Amino acid sequence: MGAKLRIDFLTLFPNMLSGFLGESMLARAREAGILELNVYDIRDWSKSKHKNVDDRPFGGGPGMLLMPDPIFSAIEALQTPGCTRIYMCPDGERLTPQIAAELSQKKHLIILSGHYEGIDQRVRDCLIDREISIGDYVLTNGTLPAAVLADALCRYVKGVLGEENSLTNDSFNGNLLSFPQYTRPAVFRGMEVPQVLMSGNHELISQWRRQQQVEKTKQRRPDILKSKENKQ
Amino acid sequence: MGAKLRIDFLTLFPNMLSGFLGESMLARAREAGILELNVYDIRDWSKSKHKNVDDRPFGGGPGMLLMPDPIFSAIEALQTPGCTRIYMCPDGERLTPQIAAELSQKKHLIILSGHYEGIDQRVRDCLIDREISIGDYVLTNGTLPAAVLADALCRYVKGVLGEENSLTNDSFNGNLLSFPQYTRPAVFRGMEVPQVLMSGNHELISQWRRQQQVEKTKQRRPDILKSKENKQ
Repeated sequence: MGAKLRIDFLTLFPNMLSGFLGESMLARAREAGILELNVYDIRDWSKSKHKNVDDRPFGGGPGMLLMPDPIFSAIEALQTPGCTRIYMCPDGERLTPQIAAELSQKKHLIILSGHYEGIDQRVRDCLIDREISIGDYVLTNGTLPAAVLADALCRYVKGVLGEENSLTNDSFNGNLLSFPQYTRPAVFRGMEVPQVLMSGNHELISQWRRQQQVEKTKQRRPDILKSKENKQ
Repeated sequence: MGAKLRIDFLTLFPNMLSGFLGESMLARAREAGILELNVYDIRDWSKSKHKNVDDRPFGGGPGMLLMPDPIFSAIEALQTPGCTRIYMCPDGERLTPQIAAELSQKKHLIILSGHYEGIDQRVRDCLIDREISIGDYVLTNGTLPAAVLADALCRYVKGVLGEENSLTNDSFNGNLLSFPQYTRPAVFRGMEVPQVLMSGNHELISQWRRQQQVEKTKQRRPDILKSKENKQ
C-alpha cells in the first residue's frame, strides 16, 4: 500500500519547501500516507568538486544558466515509468483548475524548479513532459511556483481536503467569483450582516448569493463571464 | 536608517513562510537591512480562550470563515500612515509585473492571507486597500500567494537582485516569451548548441533570439502578441 501520489521536488533551494511541507493540509496528508513528498537538491547530482550547477550562456547575455548534466542525472535517477516530468517557468502553459485536477490523477510527478536566467534548452527538449506557469510575472526562482502547483493539485487527491473544506464551493468551479461571506458577530462595530443571510430562507439566500457572484464577476472579471456565456 | 520596504505577513500558518524567508535573495536582502520582513500569527489577536479565529458562515454553507475581530485588531496594531493593506484571494485583481513594480515603491505593506472558505466581508470592506490574486486556481490557503507576491515585488526593490541577475532580460518585460538558452558543454550526449550561438556574431545572435521569441510567443501565447500589437 503506497501513497496515492508521489511528488519529487527538484530544486536549488530545498529549505524553501520545508515550511510549506511541514504545515497545513499537505503535511497532514503526508503523515496519513496519502501523499509521498520528497525534496531533492540539484547540487547533489553535480560531479564538480565545488558542486557547481550553473555556467554562462552561449552567445552572451547576463546571468547564469543551470547546466544540463546535473539535471539529466537527477531526473534519470528519480523517474519511474509513466511519471510526468514538469518544469516550472513563466513561458509554460498557465495553471488552471483543470490542469491541477488532471495532474492529481497521476501516480508520480517530478517538479523541476529553475533559478538564475533559466535552464539549458536540451533539458526542456529531452526530459520535460509539461512546462507550467503559475502566472504572468517573474519570480527569483521556481521553487515557490512548484509549491503552488503541488498545493493546487493535491487538493484534488482523495482524502487530502478535510471535511471542513470542500471542492464544490470553490471559486472558479462554477465560473463565477465567490459571494460575500459573513460570520459572527452579527453586528461588528456597528456593521450589520445583510438581513437576507439571517432570514433562514434558503431560497432567498441562494438567490442573493448568486446575484452577488454575477455582479462581482461582471465588475472584476468580465472575461470569465464571457467565456462562460460562450460555453452555454 | 530603516529598511527600504517593510512587509508584514498576517497568516494562520507563520511556519509556512520560514523556509521561504530563510533562503534565496529575500533572505540576503533582509540580512543586508534592505527589507524588513515580519510574520505574524492571526491567532495572537484572538481574545478567546482557545485562540479561536473562525466560525460558521451566516446563511449556511460548508466550511469556516475567519472572524472579523482578530483581523481588525491585528491590522490596527500593525498599520502605519500610508501603508497598503493587501488581501490575497482568488477574486482579486491578477498580479502583473506592473503591480509588483508599483507595490515595490511603497514603504510598508501588510499582506493578509486567508484560509478556510475565506474571511468576513467586513474586513474586506473596511480594512483592505487591494485584493490581489496570483492566478485562476484555488489553493488550500493564502500563505503561498503572499510569498509569491512578496517575491515578485521585492525583485524591484533596489539592491535586492544580485549582480548576476537582471530585471531587463526578464520574460514579459518585452512582452515576448524568453528565447532558448544553452550553456556548457557545447555538445551534450550528442546534442549540439545551435551554431549561431557559437558564431561570435552578436547581430546574428540577437536576430536569432528575437526570432525564437516571436515564434514561441506565437505558438504558446498569441494573446500576449496581440496585446503588444494593439499597443504599437
